[in-house]
Amino acid sequence: MKKIAILMGSDSDLPIVQKAVDVLDEFGASYEVHVYSAHRTADEARDFAINARTAGFGVIIAVAGMAAHLAGAIAANTTLPVIGIPCKSSNLDGIDALLSTVQMPSGIPVATVAINGGANAALLSLEILAVSDDKLADRLDEKRKEMSKKVLEKDRMISLRFNKTEK
Amino acid sequence: MKKIAILMGSDSDLPIVQKAVDVLDEFGASYEVHVYSAHRTADEARDFAINARTAGFGVIIAVAGMAAHLAGAIAANTTLPVIGIPCKSSNLDGIDALLSTVQMPSGIPVATVAINGGANAALLSLEILAVSDDKLADRLDEKRKEMSKKVLEKDRMISLRFNKTEK
Amino acid sequence: MKKIAILMGSDSDLPIVQKAVDVLDEFGASYEVHVYSAHRTADEARDFAINARTAGFGVIIAVAGMAAHLAGAIAANTTLPVIGIPCKSSNLDGIDALLSTVQMPSGIPVATVAINGGANAALLSLEILAVSDDKLADRLDEKRKEMSKKVLEKDRMISLRFNKTEK
Amino acid sequence: MKKIAILMGSDSDLPIVQKAVDVLDEFGASYEVHVYSAHRTADEARDFAINARTAGFGVIIAVAGMAAHLAGAIAANTTLPVIGIPCKSSNLDGIDALLSTVQMPSGIPVATVAINGGANAALLSLEILAVSDDKLADRLDEKRKEMSKKVLEKDRMISLRFNKTEK
Amino acid sequence: MKKIAILMGSDSDLPIVQKAVDVLDEFGASYEVHVYSAHRTADEARDFAINARTAGFGVIIAVAGMAAHLAGAIAANTTLPVIGIPCKSSNLDGIDALLSTVQMPSGIPVATVAINGGANAALLSLEILAVSDDKLADRLDEKRKEMSKKVLEKDRMISLRFNKTEK
Amino acid sequence: MKKIAILMGSDSDLPIVQKAVDVLDEFGASYEVHVYSAHRTADEARDFAINARTAGFGVIIAVAGMAAHLAGAIAANTTLPVIGIPCKSSNLDGIDALLSTVQMPSGIPVATVAINGGANAALLSLEILAVSDDKLADRLDEKRKEMSKKVLEKDRMISLRFNKTEK
Amino acid sequence: MKKIAILMGSDSDLPIVQKAVDVLDEFGASYEVHVYSAHRTADEARDFAINARTAGFGVIIAVAGMAAHLAGAIAANTTLPVIGIPCKSSNLDGIDALLSTVQMPSGIPVATVAINGGANAALLSLEILAVSDDKLADRLDEKRKEMSKKVLEKDRMISLRFNKTEK
Amino acid sequence: MKKIAILMGSDSDLPIVQKAVDVLDEFGASYEVHVYSAHRTADEARDFAINARTAGFGVIIAVAGMAAHLAGAIAANTTLPVIGIPCKSSNLDGIDALLSTVQMPSGIPVATVAINGGANAALLSLEILAVSDDKLADRLDEKRKEMSKKVLEKDRMISLRFNKTEK
Repeated sequence: MKKIAILMGSDSDLPIVQKAVDVLDEFGASYEVHVYSAHRTADEARDFAINARTAGFGVIIAVAGMAAHLAGAIAANTTLPVIGIPCKSSNLDGIDALLSTVQMPSGIPVATVAINGGANAALLSLEILAVSDDKLADRLDEKRKEMSKKVLEKDRMISLRFNKTEK
Repeated sequence: MKKIAILMGSDSDLPIVQKAVDVLDEFGASYEVHVYSAHRTADEARDFAINARTAGFGVIIAVAGMAAHLAGAIAANTTLPVIGIPCKSSNLDGIDALLSTVQMPSGIPVATVAINGGANAALLSLEILAVSDDKLADRLDEKRKEMSKKVLEKDRMISLRFNKTEK
Repeated sequence: MKKIAILMGSDSDLPIVQKAVDVLDEFGASYEVHVYSAHRTADEARDFAINARTAGFGVIIAVAGMAAHLAGAIAANTTLPVIGIPCKSSNLDGIDALLSTVQMPSGIPVATVAINGGANAALLSLEILAVSDDKLADRLDEKRKEMSKKVLEKDRMISLRFNKTEK
Repeated sequence: MKKIAILMGSDSDLPIVQKAVDVLDEFGASYEVHVYSAHRTADEARDFAINARTAGFGVIIAVAGMAAHLAGAIAANTTLPVIGIPCKSSNLDGIDALLSTVQMPSGIPVATVAINGGANAALLSLEILAVSDDKLADRLDEKRKEMSKKVLEKDRMISLRFNKTEK
Repeated sequence: MKKIAILMGSDSDLPIVQKAVDVLDEFGASYEVHVYSAHRTADEARDFAINARTAGFGVIIAVAGMAAHLAGAIAANTTLPVIGIPCKSSNLDGIDALLSTVQMPSGIPVATVAINGGANAALLSLEILAVSDDKLADRLDEKRKEMSKKVLEKDRMISLRFNKTEK
Repeated sequence: MKKIAILMGSDSDLPIVQKAVDVLDEFGASYEVHVYSAHRTADEARDFAINARTAGFGVIIAVAGMAAHLAGAIAANTTLPVIGIPCKSSNLDGIDALLSTVQMPSGIPVATVAINGGANAALLSLEILAVSDDKLADRLDEKRKEMSKKVLEKDRMISLRFNKTEK
Repeated sequence: MKKIAILMGSDSDLPIVQKAVDVLDEFGASYEVHVYSAHRTADEARDFAINARTAGFGVIIAVAGMAAHLAGAIAANTTLPVIGIPCKSSNLDGIDALLSTVQMPSGIPVATVAINGGANAALLSLEILAVSDDKLADRLDEKRKEMSKKVLEKDRMISLRFNKTEK
Repeated sequence: MKKIAILMGSDSDLPIVQKAVDVLDEFGASYEVHVYSAHRTADEARDFAINARTAGFGVIIAVAGMAAHLAGAIAANTTLPVIGIPCKSSNLDGIDALLSTVQMPSGIPVATVAINGGANAALLSLEILAVSDDKLADRLDEKRKEMSKKVLEKDRMISLRFNKTEK
């Protein structure tokens, strides 16, 4: 299985990254985590992106807030799929980061997930690797069934507690 | 190469789809185009999603406007990567479709691209297939270089025309 | 009196549901409460919707946050009136849920109430049942008068305390 | 079948009303159309609302733009279900009308549909009447099937025209 | 001096009203405070508005949140100047109340002040009465000078503490 | 009757001003119209404001777009009531002008009307003058009745044309 | 006088650039215009920024739309002042470009002007150069006076045409 | 080195100013800090702006919230570069201050930085002074390298702690 890179623009984004890491650990995925700022360490971010495919990475996840350029800056330097997690790190609830991440110009896509969507970014990276890895695809399907089961259990408990239909 | 599915919520989204199709044709990709509404043909959309992996699809692109549920409804029924294109089809400039597509709950990711971002959705789908297809990766890199060249040519023409530095 | 269904996308929406349940209890309405996710238990949600009318339901209330698809997904599978409560469960104050719930495409309406508007959703469901139930209509009118009285009492107390017109 | 009232705040909202009327005509529904402004003819609007139930109305649809108070003003004076259509009649794309219509305080619900959603308001009013009218419910289900068929036909035509999977 | 009315849609708006009352007390103005809901006590609100001029009021201030109709409902029933204070009482930071208050249709103006702007509403009401009351105008000018002095004192203290220009 | 001043930040705001002028002409009000920019002719704007009361003005209307400072800049230099008309003159539909006009700090109120609300600003200025001018108040009430009549006539025509209740 | 660089992310931004060029020509400034995309020609953009100071540039203006990263990408590679012009090139009226340009993280400032604000970007660049160039400062002051004069002339014409104060 | 002025609209903006002061102290810059309100001490603000260049200032930073007019009011009275810091001081997360600061009309630019962006405003002011001060430019470059080093150190620590690539 190819490696997944998780890049964060600042170490204050660590709680979001942790949610992604937890999912990757659950699936036993190989990954690296880095702090690369699109602006403060632009060259390191760029070099990482340029070399990522040959270094064995299959997907890159980039987390950033405010004028969140990291995902776009990485995507500009690789044709690996780049997943952007806009994160709330300003006063604007993350809407600045969302628009800065998703509204990429034609030619350089970024696969954007929800604001602070660490877990979904990790799942999406696994879905991408699973396109050519049937075993991983099966495990993702398995995980879906578990999620479904948990919701159904909650439904059972709550529907018992609340229903009032015997009038 | 696995197939790419492009689903649109309404045939009024065809101009966006065309931009994606043009990119896929340029790369000689295999694809199918369908009109499936998350609400008006919910069952067909669901059945397509459930069977997509075994039918040979590697990625699904979903285009929808307003309360754009199509990408999410597809993603709920497959663990293939699903790319969502929010499109402007209401009075709200596509911001309703963007939020309806990108703000997916934990567990069911949708890879969202820019509003009306047909070309980028196609490029992202190819990047995903290229993770396990070095030839396709090379062609994507090639395409980037061409894009770059075109910008540089424009730079040359415009910088000749405008610069006034000989004072 | 037909039954009212309250469906929530996640059990974290329970406080909103509780406000609806309190109103329904006050009117002695028959209801069921369920946890059905439009994405994590899409099939159960769909089956519930398809069978709701024959199961004796008259109205369905659906509560969901973020890319709130639940109300729309239910409405896609029934012609019972579906009331959507967008709820604040992300960083965007519920505006994502509001647009995802209300901006439904032509053909599949969702009756949307205010963000986190649990009580109003319940009242609306009762108003719908009251169209063919004059007794219930009378009780709704009664309730309005009580509400009105409470406001008038507050007015009396506050106008006594604050007015300074004897200059 | 009870009557449906369609009230518009200004005759400039007529195109939206026409979409509702077309749907009601298709179903042979009984309806009245009025121009009542929440501000310019507040008393007439109020009197209509107070007398609507005894006058044989089952549902009231209110269309208004800008600081769209009409639906709320009607809802304040009746416990019949009131459907609000926020409409785009200012420079703000209808977001002012949407928030003015949907964000009703606890106690006085308005069933809000999409901006300019004339057809959906009419369908919702029919769904409400169909709660106690099985024949109408059947016809609404019929209409859904027709809608579904149209989408499937479009799918057939477009999927024939576009698919390129014979590599 | 004519009286000023302060109407609030709900007694939860009292903190905003208090800021207005404090200003009016400072100027020894005559005022009445009432709790009138545009929706829950629509008739009382209307009757107050209709009779306000003959009851000796010169200006009406209306405070409301969410789909804030109170100021508009009052303005619909009087040609006295009506000042609207949109207030933050929902999850949307008051932007819903702002748009519901300020975007009034042609013919029925509401003089809108800032979200939660209790003090400014009171000052504006006094400015309106001062148009024909030179003494009050003088006192308003006096108050401005005091405000100005306070800022200048703060400037003196802060500029002493912070300036570093003697390099 | 005191004079009304209409100040516009740029002569491109003339169509908005014209709507105000038409209303003032209808009432035979005395007024002056000026082009004063808060930024380009800051001193002239300031001087006008400082001298406005002694020059016989009773109300000042200020029209401006984008970072619309004109109303606030005038209000900073007079305690006459200042009415702000935010106008759409940028790409942001006037929301920038609305917030720049209405969100005034405590101490300096601006009476804000709807985006491009020229007629309402004029009506509000007349309502303010009418506080101490019963004749003008009567004429404003008269105007309201005319408006009401026009709406009722439209109602009569439209309700004849559309109603289908004789089934 | 140092040179000014104007960089645009795409040649579709040329009309905005032209407004800047016109101002610079009026002042006889030295400048260069380039098309550099933050994503499509990231290396060229970076190299330009790194070498700009030694190449004799004093200020860099960057124009970009959508997820407008150009100004930030340039600012990351130079400590010359970088002026960002967010431009409207998507469906979102330029609000995406504005937030992507202005919400820069701590450490890397971008001096942002209004959406499509080509002329102001040029004036700001001249103001920056004028800090150490008294002659240029004088000419900027001169320009202000001309602007002021034009507004005053318009005021004279319009105030003659419109004022109606001799009643 | 020319002096830098930091003006705040209210002393409640002091925390933002402190962040700017800290940066200026780090660079040993000369500066003055003042509390000038665009509305409450409009004349003092204006006089400061008019005299700033002759008083030895090179750049003016203005901090303000809500309808943030301070930066614009200063810019209207000087051709020195004016940097605006929109700050969050209302219920709208600073978006009102951002638009009031950045959307300046043609002719009067304000160099706007991020909401609450005190440090970046200070850095930008230093970058402006550094255009004609190579030593300062060198120190700004030095500071960038330090910032970069800090990020790289964090990267080293975090990448050691998190990476899981040896499967």
